[in-house]
Amino acid sequence: MTDELTKDDFLGGKLCVYQPRKGYRAGVDPVLLAASTPAKPEQSVLELGCGVGVASLCLSARIPGLSITGIELQADYAALARRNARENDAPFNVINADLRQLPVEIRQQRFDHVIMNPPYFDRTTSVAAQDTGRDVALGGDTPLADWLEIGARRVGPRGYLTIIQRMERLPEVLSGLKGRLGALIARPIAGREDRAPELFLMQARQEGRAAFHMMPTLIMHKGKVHAGDKESYTSEVSAALRSGAELPILR
Amino acid sequence: MTDELTKDDFLGGKLCVYQPRKGYRAGVDPVLLAASTPAKPEQSVLELGCGVGVASLCLSARIPGLSITGIELQADYAALARRNARENDAPFNVINADLRQLPVEIRQQRFDHVIMNPPYFDRTTSVAAQDTGRDVALGGDTPLADWLEIGARRVGPRGYLTIIQRMERLPEVLSGLKGRLGALIARPIAGREDRAPELFLMQARQEGRAAFHMMPTLIMHKGKVHAGDKESYTSEVSAALRSGAELPILR
Repeated sequence: MTDELTKDDFLGGKLCVYQPRKGYRAGVDPVLLAASTPAKPEQSVLELGCGVGVASLCLSARIPGLSITGIELQADYAALARRNARENDAPFNVINADLRQLPVEIRQQRFDHVIMNPPYFDRTTSVAAQDTGRDVALGGDTPLADWLEIGARRVGPRGYLTIIQRMERLPEVLSGLKGRLGALIARPIAGREDRAPELFLMQARQEGRAAFHMMPTLIMHKGKVHAGDKESYTSEVSAALRSGAELPILR
Repeated sequence: MTDELTKDDFLGGKLCVYQPRKGYRAGVDPVLLAASTPAKPEQSVLELGCGVGVASLCLSARIPGLSITGIELQADYAALARRNARENDAPFNVINADLRQLPVEIRQQRFDHVIMNPPYFDRTTSVAAQDTGRDVALGGDTPLADWLEIGARRVGPRGYLTIIQRMERLPEVLSGLKGRLGALIARPIAGREDRAPELFLMQARQEGRAAFHMMPTLIMHKGKVHAGDKESYTSEVSAALRSGAELPILR
């Protein structure tokens, strides 16, 4: 990561986030993750791999009185997340740690919600990015199975785990959650109608008994082709990205 | 099964099928399965649990010169499948056997395509149907994992396995194919746009290396609500059901 930062608006300006100009930069994915997390006021939330904190901060902007803990492996991203928490006056406590070596106070705690946006690429099959920070964020060394196992363990009674990930890793996410959490719901995300969904949201519940369910695909953009430089988000996505509305995951 | 039969047209009359009036009755699902199977002329096909033979006969109507073998546990359904093969002059050889005890000549053979439409309900969690034949077809005693393992073993080099199943069993199908076949492609099937997909097609390939892929959802009916008694299939589905067109599964 270089020292150069940008200051970016999220949720139509409700949130302002410092992030490295060159390293890993948050896009819409953590915003969709937060919008899909069914947290209620006063609940506790653990975010694994929070980066500069966009998902947790979006969640805190939508729901009052949360108590949010973020875990971030990279010290400089963790420092930025803390700064972003202060700037946005958010109840967001950031711990610089490897999620495989969580501090004892976290390992003794269970949360109403665990959320995560793990690296999309498997390091063993992808080419490393030029920037190290971006590289760890895009294709970290921690196997996805570890993220899921560690995350599932921290979900409290009737609590939820919510994850966003690349579609090609759907089988890994299903097998990583198997036997740990139940009532799984997947929501595919496609750029446009008639396009293959490239991402998915998945929600699972502690003690959940319901069968696997797939929601209709969330479509990001209206129309079949890109209409010049005009923003073309569908109304549901626009409400989540621009106004911080919830994108509920439902059966 | 009662002795009473009906004679039903499939593929807009290209195919005529005898089936029990009361037992398990083939609907559109085996037709979609056949339409999604990428068989080429002269190839070999094995259908596990062929019932009265609709999927295999649809495949034979679309592609000339196939050599198709069907396995059916229930003797009366197997007998009807043979009769349907004769009536439609199809190269379809039906064996009355438990798929877990395949005859040695089948166990010594591998096929270009294995297709299956296994029971949708898990007997351990569902209520039995009143008709025994229908009961076995809807929620048989053979675990889905066995169908997948036995089917995967019979797929020859670069051959395909194609399955249609209820969406809630997607995790089971993925884990059953894991380590056996690769290049998995799922195609969700929804009744209408904006409805949750209730079924899916899945295709996997022997020696396939490509990552998991999900196609856009196949939509069965046009519009958001049912328009009286007018047939409302989307053009893609109508071409498959009424003209026997292919519904290719593609990356």
